[in-house]
Amino acid sequence: MIDHTHDPALTSWVASANEPHTDFPIQNLPFGRFRPAGGGKGWRIGVAIGDQVLDLRLVMEEELWGQGEQRVMQWLAEGELNAFMALGGDARRKLRHLLSDALREGSRQEAALRHCLRPQADIELGLPCHIGDYTDFYTGIHHATAVGKLFRPDNPLLPNYKWVPIGYHGRVSSLGVSGQRFHRPLGQTQPPAPDASPVFGPSQRLDYELELGVFVGAGNPLGRPMSMAQAENDWFGMVLLNDWSARDLQAWEYQPLGPFLAKNFATTISPWIVTQEALAPFRAPHQRPASDPQPLAHLDSPANREAGALDITLEVLLQTARMRSEGVAPERLMRSNFRDAYWTVAQMLAHHSSNGCNLQPGDLLGSGTQSGPEVGQGGSLLELTQGGKQAITLANGETRRFLEDGDTVLLRAVCERPGARRIGFGPCAGTVLPAVEGPRH
Amino acid sequence: MIDHTHDPALTSWVASANEPHTDFPIQNLPFGRFRPAGGGKGWRIGVAIGDQVLDLRLVMEEELWGQGEQRVMQWLAEGELNAFMALGGDARRKLRHLLSDALREGSRQEAALRHCLRPQADIELGLPCHIGDYTDFYTGIHHATAVGKLFRPDNPLLPNYKWVPIGYHGRVSSLGVSGQRFHRPLGQTQPPAPDASPVFGPSQRLDYELELGVFVGAGNPLGRPMSMAQAENDWFGMVLLNDWSARDLQAWEYQPLGPFLAKNFATTISPWIVTQEALAPFRAPHQRPASDPQPLAHLDSPANREAGALDITLEVLLQTARMRSEGVAPERLMRSNFRDAYWTVAQMLAHHSSNGCNLQPGDLLGSGTQSGPEVGQGGSLLELTQGGKQAITLANGETRRFLEDGDTVLLRAVCERPGARRIGFGPCAGTVLPAVEGPRH
Repeated sequence: MIDHTHDPALTSWVASANEPHTDFPIQNLPFGRFRPAGGGKGWRIGVAIGDQVLDLRLVMEEELWGQGEQRVMQWLAEGELNAFMALGGDARRKLRHLLSDALREGSRQEAALRHCLRPQADIELGLPCHIGDYTDFYTGIHHATAVGKLFRPDNPLLPNYKWVPIGYHGRVSSLGVSGQRFHRPLGQTQPPAPDASPVFGPSQRLDYELELGVFVGAGNPLGRPMSMAQAENDWFGMVLLNDWSARDLQAWEYQPLGPFLAKNFATTISPWIVTQEALAPFRAPHQRPASDPQPLAHLDSPANREAGALDITLEVLLQTARMRSEGVAPERLMRSNFRDAYWTVAQMLAHHSSNGCNLQPGDLLGSGTQSGPEVGQGGSLLELTQGGKQAITLANGETRRFLEDGDTVLLRAVCERPGARRIGFGPCAGTVLPAVEGPRH
Repeated sequence: MIDHTHDPALTSWVASANEPHTDFPIQNLPFGRFRPAGGGKGWRIGVAIGDQVLDLRLVMEEELWGQGEQRVMQWLAEGELNAFMALGGDARRKLRHLLSDALREGSRQEAALRHCLRPQADIELGLPCHIGDYTDFYTGIHHATAVGKLFRPDNPLLPNYKWVPIGYHGRVSSLGVSGQRFHRPLGQTQPPAPDASPVFGPSQRLDYELELGVFVGAGNPLGRPMSMAQAENDWFGMVLLNDWSARDLQAWEYQPLGPFLAKNFATTISPWIVTQEALAPFRAPHQRPASDPQPLAHLDSPANREAGALDITLEVLLQTARMRSEGVAPERLMRSNFRDAYWTVAQMLAHHSSNGCNLQPGDLLGSGTQSGPEVGQGGSLLELTQGGKQAITLANGETRRFLEDGDTVLLRAVCERPGARRIGFGPCAGTVLPAVEGPRH
């Protein structure tokens, strides 16, 4: 629903929010969990505005609004984003309106809120909420086809793909936010010789995956599936997500129960949740080729066909250790768009709950790798290098088949459309550290 | 380590703990989380003894022990089993000794502790702790072979099986304890006709899986794998686990990323965690056939070979709605033993953390279905009915290929060995309710 909070002409008394290239203009207002840089206790919920964060604990203490609004603020003031997520879409929209009105140029609340701001440079960000379960989907059909070709040349896209929004459960404990640094995973791999025994050691085929992450809002009780209409309204917002993957571990372990150690050593998300409401101007039709099967009734709705897709431009950038030491900026490896996903966010939620599985506030759903339809739009090195066969060459002459120690991968997402204010997701960066020696026995 | 707490001659001043067929003699002392039957606030941690539960909040208030012991008790008194799990094996053993000494016949603490008991009949039990992540393994080689034959007749046991303790991530939100009742899941299935479109409706092939669940103790930090020696000492204890499975959903959805909606609608565990220490007398050698590959170094240790297995007798019983209405007791469908698992508990933990994945206190690891080597020892109906082809007939003449609405499945586990006091796990029961109609669109 587009309203005055989306007006591209709207500006804020926080001057940095009016810069043309900020990710966080007043039209965005994403939620994050922060504390003063350098640690210390007391995570708080904040809203990003320009290069500042609005501390919702301090806002609460100003008592700017009536009792109902203050009650909503109470949870946020206590640092509990999940409880706010549980309130659903109406509360989300209500707060968006209050904050937009308070932060706009000429607001009477400017004086009260000025001291509720902190520079983002002075904070550290954590996971935005308690994540009870993390599920990873596989909605990128171009990725599924390209990777399917490498793992199953004769059978790249399986028969269920166009009927079932394929997903599997992921690991919560190793989720981290932008800035995450993790050691190259050790694991079992099978040498190429046909009868050779597997060996255990550092992964030689470490990769990233460009994804979006969706946070569940109010969710559904066990045994009560969400309709498409509920699903459409339920999801809270989105982040970027890097589903780091060890391809050599994956190839050896994934049959018959799917990826496990190939994925669960680290997953990095961007710390600011861009709400469903902020993304409203970037809705797009979700249309399948007429030759494709149409979704079954529980995964279909007119609203989904008309505006179920999201026009979000995605990018992967790489900065090697050498580039960093020489002060060279990250280099873009590809660009794609979430509009090309085969399944929508609402379809992910409706499918996930269709068997009665309960989704809870703050649960995280990965979109799967978002590769574009063209050559060079692969959302992983596996695709860009054709399974490691064809190295890519960077501007400084370095080459990559897979990630090397010291590499930083940076994901970016931006929404731009004529007649709408540009919004962004903020960075999602992660760095590969050398493998640590295994335990002694 | 066997010590005086395992002495089979040891008896308790709680008379019901001395009954020969109790699951909870003084040699067991499992942990659970309870509250007064009928709800109300305030979950507490308790220890089962005979038909009673020892309320650790009340025990704490007695101040029976020194400051160090009281500090350990503090977490338990607050209802936080996870914090106690995080303390590791020494704290677990220390508390076991204190409680064993306090509950034994002739203890000077009897008078103080008498009023800390409540009848188990007067309480309800919840999940024993906060479960951050749930992983399901696949350690039953007889199950893997039998099921592999049904899904892949030409290739039942995949080449990685004897090298990798296969596992995948499961769903936390739909975990429940014994007594769980859940609706038959809806889902997509593919009709047998080769080009027919899939249909959405109630699963027609609903099944149970007989598993054990392992709770992680102190765990490991991200990036720091556990050695086998650490893994051996780390795990906190075990429960029974029923991994309810919708076989028709599973067959259609599981490629290429593994089971998802076929499993995540419900998983039932028994509420009492039987500790690693209580299971010490039931250790057994873990030996592979000489013709099989031996485990790689990070999954191998002399201790694991000598005593890595656990001699736990497992049973599945079924009570249909008709049996229940006629007052007929549950009927045993099979019996197997966890000794036959291809991978040990320590190997599960060492493998899971071998890539750096962090295991956290209270994480739950399923063992995979524990089928025995003989015909009739299948740990699921899929196996007992050869994929639904051959119905089983119950004593009252009813037949089953898969579960019907109203069926209650009851899992049992018992440890018995000459020279040791018999201990049990308590019941793990769950009941299938009819499917609910899907949401309206």
